[in-house]
Amino acid sequence: MNHTHVIIMAGGIGSRFWPMSTTKHPKQFIDILGVGRTLIQQTFDRFKQICPASQIYVVTHVDYRDLVLEQLPELSPNQVLCEPSRRNTAPCVAYAAYKVREIDPEATLVVAPADHLILNQPEFEHIIDIACKQAQRTHALMTLGIKPSRPDTGYGYIQFTDSNDSIDPLVKKVKTFTEKPDLEIAKQFLESGDFYWNSGIFVWTLQSIIAAYEKFMPDLAELFANGKAKYNTPDESAFINSVYQVCTNLSIDYGIMEKAKNVNVVLADFGWSDLGTWGSLYTHVDKDQEQNGVIGDNVMIYDCKNNVVNLPNDKLAVIQGLTDYIVVESDNTLLICKKSEEQRIKQFVNDIKHNKGENYL
Amino acid sequence: MNHTHVIIMAGGIGSRFWPMSTTKHPKQFIDILGVGRTLIQQTFDRFKQICPASQIYVVTHVDYRDLVLEQLPELSPNQVLCEPSRRNTAPCVAYAAYKVREIDPEATLVVAPADHLILNQPEFEHIIDIACKQAQRTHALMTLGIKPSRPDTGYGYIQFTDSNDSIDPLVKKVKTFTEKPDLEIAKQFLESGDFYWNSGIFVWTLQSIIAAYEKFMPDLAELFANGKAKYNTPDESAFINSVYQVCTNLSIDYGIMEKAKNVNVVLADFGWSDLGTWGSLYTHVDKDQEQNGVIGDNVMIYDCKNNVVNLPNDKLAVIQGLTDYIVVESDNTLLICKKSEEQRIKQFVNDIKHNKGENYL
Repeated sequence: MNHTHVIIMAGGIGSRFWPMSTTKHPKQFIDILGVGRTLIQQTFDRFKQICPASQIYVVTHVDYRDLVLEQLPELSPNQVLCEPSRRNTAPCVAYAAYKVREIDPEATLVVAPADHLILNQPEFEHIIDIACKQAQRTHALMTLGIKPSRPDTGYGYIQFTDSNDSIDPLVKKVKTFTEKPDLEIAKQFLESGDFYWNSGIFVWTLQSIIAAYEKFMPDLAELFANGKAKYNTPDESAFINSVYQVCTNLSIDYGIMEKAKNVNVVLADFGWSDLGTWGSLYTHVDKDQEQNGVIGDNVMIYDCKNNVVNLPNDKLAVIQGLTDYIVVESDNTLLICKKSEEQRIKQFVNDIKHNKGENYL
Repeated sequence: MNHTHVIIMAGGIGSRFWPMSTTKHPKQFIDILGVGRTLIQQTFDRFKQICPASQIYVVTHVDYRDLVLEQLPELSPNQVLCEPSRRNTAPCVAYAAYKVREIDPEATLVVAPADHLILNQPEFEHIIDIACKQAQRTHALMTLGIKPSRPDTGYGYIQFTDSNDSIDPLVKKVKTFTEKPDLEIAKQFLESGDFYWNSGIFVWTLQSIIAAYEKFMPDLAELFANGKAKYNTPDESAFINSVYQVCTNLSIDYGIMEKAKNVNVVLADFGWSDLGTWGSLYTHVDKDQEQNGVIGDNVMIYDCKNNVVNLPNDKLAVIQGLTDYIVVESDNTLLICKKSEEQRIKQFVNDIKHNKGENYL
């Protein structure tokens, strides 16, 4: 029997991808690459190669429940875990772990965000396989590290060292997790060769992650353990709603990974991007000779270089004389912004909330 | 009795104002300045100060008949002269002149494009009054010259000299009409003080313009004279359709004004623009401290200078980091273009016709 169960985390709102990504329709539910499948659909497709669809769960905000079921019709409602409020990843993973324990106490869990891009599927499957085997063999908490291709200051880094009990040369012992570095530090990380990007993709046995919750977040462990009789029943939803009113708001990185001693990393290089910004999207779309990445069937460009353009297919557009810009329209909302200023998109969205109200977002 | 009759020419397609101006809905039918009245409505309002609404006629392509009647509900259908095809201004003015002759043979005609901007209404009325009186006194063909404010290479110029029989110091004798000059010549024109812009606004008595047609375009005169019994009857439309199949395609400037000897110009300075391009529009809209002219209720701009932005009121837009651009959307069509390249808009429209077909325009 395949004991691998996959938890797809799909509760984010992706405000840096505004205006395509909005609170009502966040990035993971959008075909942001223009390939015919939304990001969560691509993630689901990817994991169906790893375990049966019936062992894939999506944790999301209750507001997105219908979107998830619509985009992933193979899921039963019981596979969509609805959070009544956003409490970061520690409660999210705990909810999934305690629920899955009532289905398969021997489970190995793969936890992954819904909105990442992975280009090399066979290599991804190979890495997940290594991570599962290592987790099962040693009960280590596994995280996937991504080989850095540039001194990016937008990611956390994982410093690693050799491990005594690794089943594969790609498995290393985690020495430290580091915050997002400044550029100078990031360059040093890259040169040293001992630092990989923190992907936010985790693998662990149910047994070991529950032990970790009990050790490092005992209050949270107790809260979710109390639901034993309610998971996978009509009472689950009311139980979770009450738990989320009192549970802590913390990431699993802070709450567990940075504290646990038995943390390993698998060194991965499978064409990964978290698609966190328009700039990171730009590196993954097809580009013309002038390095414009254009999505949209009716966009005509003249004298343009290095732009990322994403317009609805039914929109006719003529764009002339832009270099290094983002031009995006979605839901009758237009953004024109220098690529170098894309970090300010969150600010723009806040300004809109402040000046125009939530209804405009 | 007021014998002044006004002919508003409204048959153009204004392709340089794409995408707001399209073949289906040209510039004159758009509130391009965002003031609450379309250009043809503003023109109509202007002339209602000069003669009764019942003496104002609009010549347009038959496709725009309903648009005219919708936007100018004071007009009766008989005041909307429909051309079955575009034949430039000589047939257009002849049609109106021969038709009005059957209504008021003593008429003085004021002929003006539908899509010009005039800021100083009292001065405009004063100039029209001078032109009418001079036309009635001397039977001169009157044209309005506009005091040039810059060495514009987009206009024709009128060179003038003193006149012996002028009723007002502002009335001069036309020496030559010149084509659009190059920049060096335009600068010399401006320095000399003897050249004004050719506005395309004319005043003449019915008697003198018909005499001019008979002298300089006798074939056209005969064609339209043949309709004497049909104007202002149910037979007018069929008659005009047959005339337009055979009549010449020529401007009244080439056909008559440049040949006639009795042409006078009134020197005018009433805040005029032909709104021929986005750049000329830019000079007439309200601008913010950074010289951005923005039309649209929900446009937020950051780090922008000297742009002209015209977006639908229901469209939310964030525009960051543009200087000297045109950003316009209309009917789900977007244009982003450097102001300095706006002469290429016609080319863009042709490219779209060629690549996408007429349906996209």
